[in-house]
Amino acid sequence: MISISILGSGNVAQQLVSAFEKADNIQLVQVFSRKQNTISTLSKSVSIIQDYNQLESVDLFIIAVSDDAIAKVSEQIPFQNKLVVHTSGSVSMESLSDVNRKGVFYPLQTLSKTKEINFKEVPLCLEAATASDRELLHKVASSISNQVYNIDSTQRQSLHVAAVFVNNFTNHLFQIGAAICKENGVSFDILKPLIKETADKINFLSPEEAQTGPAKRRDTTTINKHLDFLTDSNQKEIYKLITKSIIDNGKL
Amino acid sequence: MISISILGSGNVAQQLVSAFEKADNIQLVQVFSRKQNTISTLSKSVSIIQDYNQLESVDLFIIAVSDDAIAKVSEQIPFQNKLVVHTSGSVSMESLSDVNRKGVFYPLQTLSKTKEINFKEVPLCLEAATASDRELLHKVASSISNQVYNIDSTQRQSLHVAAVFVNNFTNHLFQIGAAICKENGVSFDILKPLIKETADKINFLSPEEAQTGPAKRRDTTTINKHLDFLTDSNQKEIYKLITKSIIDNGKL
Repeated sequence: MISISILGSGNVAQQLVSAFEKADNIQLVQVFSRKQNTISTLSKSVSIIQDYNQLESVDLFIIAVSDDAIAKVSEQIPFQNKLVVHTSGSVSMESLSDVNRKGVFYPLQTLSKTKEINFKEVPLCLEAATASDRELLHKVASSISNQVYNIDSTQRQSLHVAAVFVNNFTNHLFQIGAAICKENGVSFDILKPLIKETADKINFLSPEEAQTGPAKRRDTTTINKHLDFLTDSNQKEIYKLITKSIIDNGKL
Repeated sequence: MISISILGSGNVAQQLVSAFEKADNIQLVQVFSRKQNTISTLSKSVSIIQDYNQLESVDLFIIAVSDDAIAKVSEQIPFQNKLVVHTSGSVSMESLSDVNRKGVFYPLQTLSKTKEINFKEVPLCLEAATASDRELLHKVASSISNQVYNIDSTQRQSLHVAAVFVNNFTNHLFQIGAAICKENGVSFDILKPLIKETADKINFLSPEEAQTGPAKRRDTTTINKHLDFLTDSNQKEIYKLITKSIIDNGKL
């Protein structure tokens, strides 16, 4: 049995609480949440605390707070030489307090409190300074997910940047699609099967093989028609730039 | 029973052939395919022809060829006052020959020959000049899809532009994500659950509600870290521009 406590009250903290409560071999001991009633637990054996001095000694402390609060929270843990990890994609492992052993436990997924997620499919990117800590993290991660990876800080940074492209920026393109539909009185629902298929396709083809459209074909007639159609300046610039990038890519 | 012939040998033509062969109330009569062996049919009752003069009279001719060939092919059909439609998202209905009745039968999906698709979920956008032709197209479309819409030419143009954003451009962002992974020695597979969830999320939330990330939070520390990390100039420019667009959007 590995004992864990979680510090944080946001989306990641909540999803980890839910996942660990269902896990074998894991005893979730405490959740530190400064705001009351923001974390829901299934079991009464997990206590929610508001004071760092109430923290009990456990095998692993997981800090799931916003990036800029990680260092400060790590300094508040009233123990020494315990394993303390954060869950951020973009913060260095080294930013954690030197008093304890350091590590990273980064779930690479878009997590919201409201939408339940199958944690078994969430890739967990682990980092630690020693082999024994990596082993401990691996046991913990495997108890809630089938996708566990050892990822160093530079690789994690690269994944975080890549995730911005495939998640944040992709979602913004969906928003542009929805805005164009709205402006022209058609339902955004018409585009949803296409969006589903676009994401599904990369399980069968590489993105390079899956690329289609006027830019890929260098179909300047259609490209110019589309640019004439667009009136919003950001939309127009995005259209031009990604079209250029697709064309440049074809030249490599 | 409605009789149909299809002119074309590309992805759309092949997918329509496969869909209509399974449809009740539809008799697929001929497929005009200039290139031999590029179209596969299940049934021997469908004949593949190479000469326009072999075309038989049917209720509906569907021209599924590249945009710039549509007008020419429509002029080759040796009949008058028959219903002739094209399948393009960006070509005007008016570009079809005046000798026959005009219409559009636009499947809004990314169709490849190799990846089998469930046509029942492909939105079909219909246009015709008269109510009776719209009715005929509606019957035909409903025989292969559960998602049938009447869409005028301007709306269709807007859908086509929106589709470029949510499909072509989104796929290019996937390609950038894959390139960043490759450069840093991590598997693109780690990003696939995130991509799946990004597409899935818009069935529960509007893209506006689903937006997360450093741009949405105006987290300039992370944004600058990411820009420092990127070395490819197109990737850098795309990062900057979409970040700006997300921030501008938040100001509306």
